[in-house]
Amino acid sequence: MTNIQAELISIGDELLIGQVINTNSSWMAAELNRNGISVSKITAISDKGSEIKDAIIQAEKRSNIILLTGGLGPTNDDITKNVLAEYFESGFIFHQPTFEHIKSLFKLRSYQVTEVNKNQANIPENCTPLFNSNGTAPGMWFEKDGKVIVSMPGVPFEMKGLMTKEVIPKLLKRFKLPAIINRTVMTTGVGESMLASIIEDWEIKLPSNLKLAYLPQPGIVRLRISGKGELGEELENEIEDQITSLRRIIPDLIFGYDDITLEEVIGNLLVNKSATLSTAESCTGGYIAHLITSIPGSSNYFEGSIVSYSNQVKHKQLAVNQNDLELFGAVSKEVVEQMAIGCKKELKTDYCIATSGIAGPDGGTNEKPVGTVWIAIATPNNLVSKLFHFGEHRGRNIRRSALSAMEMLRQEIK
Amino acid sequence: MTNIQAELISIGDELLIGQVINTNSSWMAAELNRNGISVSKITAISDKGSEIKDAIIQAEKRSNIILLTGGLGPTNDDITKNVLAEYFESGFIFHQPTFEHIKSLFKLRSYQVTEVNKNQANIPENCTPLFNSNGTAPGMWFEKDGKVIVSMPGVPFEMKGLMTKEVIPKLLKRFKLPAIINRTVMTTGVGESMLASIIEDWEIKLPSNLKLAYLPQPGIVRLRISGKGELGEELENEIEDQITSLRRIIPDLIFGYDDITLEEVIGNLLVNKSATLSTAESCTGGYIAHLITSIPGSSNYFEGSIVSYSNQVKHKQLAVNQNDLELFGAVSKEVVEQMAIGCKKELKTDYCIATSGIAGPDGGTNEKPVGTVWIAIATPNNLVSKLFHFGEHRGRNIRRSALSAMEMLRQEIK
Repeated sequence: MTNIQAELISIGDELLIGQVINTNSSWMAAELNRNGISVSKITAISDKGSEIKDAIIQAEKRSNIILLTGGLGPTNDDITKNVLAEYFESGFIFHQPTFEHIKSLFKLRSYQVTEVNKNQANIPENCTPLFNSNGTAPGMWFEKDGKVIVSMPGVPFEMKGLMTKEVIPKLLKRFKLPAIINRTVMTTGVGESMLASIIEDWEIKLPSNLKLAYLPQPGIVRLRISGKGELGEELENEIEDQITSLRRIIPDLIFGYDDITLEEVIGNLLVNKSATLSTAESCTGGYIAHLITSIPGSSNYFEGSIVSYSNQVKHKQLAVNQNDLELFGAVSKEVVEQMAIGCKKELKTDYCIATSGIAGPDGGTNEKPVGTVWIAIATPNNLVSKLFHFGEHRGRNIRRSALSAMEMLRQEIK
Repeated sequence: MTNIQAELISIGDELLIGQVINTNSSWMAAELNRNGISVSKITAISDKGSEIKDAIIQAEKRSNIILLTGGLGPTNDDITKNVLAEYFESGFIFHQPTFEHIKSLFKLRSYQVTEVNKNQANIPENCTPLFNSNGTAPGMWFEKDGKVIVSMPGVPFEMKGLMTKEVIPKLLKRFKLPAIINRTVMTTGVGESMLASIIEDWEIKLPSNLKLAYLPQPGIVRLRISGKGELGEELENEIEDQITSLRRIIPDLIFGYDDITLEEVIGNLLVNKSATLSTAESCTGGYIAHLITSIPGSSNYFEGSIVSYSNQVKHKQLAVNQNDLELFGAVSKEVVEQMAIGCKKELKTDYCIATSGIAGPDGGTNEKPVGTVWIAIATPNNLVSKLFHFGEHRGRNIRRSALSAMEMLRQEIK
């Protein structure tokens, strides 16, 4: 089995002036590794023709696969296509299917197709065009001396669609790759180092062909177990056995597998129970409702939310007692529990999540510093609430509050 | 004036498997550009000695300044220091001030200094050590044939301290640098290609020392104008003049400058007017409320939201007429306007945004396909509504609905 190496080249001045962080490359690197292709180098260069050409020449010396992103838009600063045609000594052809796709995309949005857009259907004749369902510029697949060179747009969601639906499947067909299996165990409830000490004994005993990685996100720690070998099925069983023994150690901390989100898990649980949900949000400001409704089909179980940012709305829309608001403050057990009960009743749902806290950066006091958050869950026959102390960063406080609230709900439903 | 170019080389396998996003490089690139140093290339490589050496050799051919990050920690997989000593044919010396600093840092944290830590004070004798106030590994400044090569730790906050306090000041002394100015014009309302055709004449007439780049995001196109010259002030005026004439062509499409968000712009407008806002969200599911409340201080103008995902909530909480819901459907001008009026009244605000649409992937019909979205804005003395046709992707439909709604509100407020 030969070692198949890929290099990634990102094109765009916005990367070199630090305006855009190169998230494309890390996403691509993770995807390629997952599929048995190592990445040996990641480069970001400007959109000058000579730089692009030079980068391809250098990369060809070292790697079997070169993936370029960026520089395929309709505007004048995008020149990758011309550079590639010149490099592969190719003329252009007008690719009618691409033009039909451009026209249908524009029709959908009621935009007019300009000459500039039409030009995107002109592609080098010795490339295989790759269908870009999310945008107008097709991907372009070239082969030369046993090397594969692919060019994709730099817009993340267009690149991701192309990678998932076109590039990775074609690479898997084109090269003989080792079996690589990655499973991810999704945990929440404790931080990275605490989790590491809880599962230390299990980790030490892992067989040497399996690797463990901790991938922390705010409120979540993903555990990725990766194995590489000749036989996929054997490897898969081996990893499954390890996950079974891990589950015995931390049954409550695992909420799912393989990058499933907490909002998806909750959706599945609610569908199974034919139960409905609402949220009453203060410090999370609608973020939980947003996460819940980001899941297709959520209208089957999600009734709605009352984002009660002001005390007036807490009192009027959620029937929180005015005296309690004054006596205990909005960030209190008393208020958050009344929010959950009030919203559950008003929106006629089986479950309700309520949040009230100080997201920051202002609004903290000695007694209730920034990061203080109360969360309550009302269920068909129960009411639970819990106090959290998160950090000082507004965005992270909102995110961690939402995740903690969804996790509390999950524990109540299951 | 010679053109001073820098290259950034990030060392670490974690970058190549996609586990860590290379935020260091974009931060460094922005800092260097701000100080008149262009970045011509950013590379991420593995922590193998041969790769590091090869990357330096390549970079030296092209650039005057090479900044390396990563590979300076005390553990075994960090080898940059040895590679550099070999490359510059240098022996090691024990640097007492660095050792004193390591000892004091460890004392502060009540850790014991091990042999491994002590070894961090061994540095190549022909480098100038740079004081790292945030960590144990010093930066190392080498010069060779007029080129500057600097090695720094990869931990972001150590690198940032070194860059700000040591590297940038030393580079400014060492090289005579041009002025570099970047301004970004934030636009919304039309896509990239449409915008390009509207401002085509202006773009063609741009002086040759100014460069224009289109940076599209869902619902937003950023226009970046970059200039390079001898005199910073002159350049700044020149760019300002160009922005003024651009503003005459697309006054309605520009919502701000230099990466300000629409939710920030709206916040500022509401604060200036001492006005309040609420949202009544169906298809956006709380996302607009989330964006608005992601801005610190938003509790000064944001009262709350009624996320009316179900028709029941639209009727009961927002007083939408039950007959109209049945007759026109939830995604209609009639319903979205009643949502805006009802929520404005219920939550007692000056302005209200309402959305109702089919985010997808299900729920579309021939008459109202996925992507059909109605948006209404209620103001103190007006009510406007508009029909949009977005695409098929749920996440993007939600995002574009939110941005379009905020843009409609902005037009009404200003």
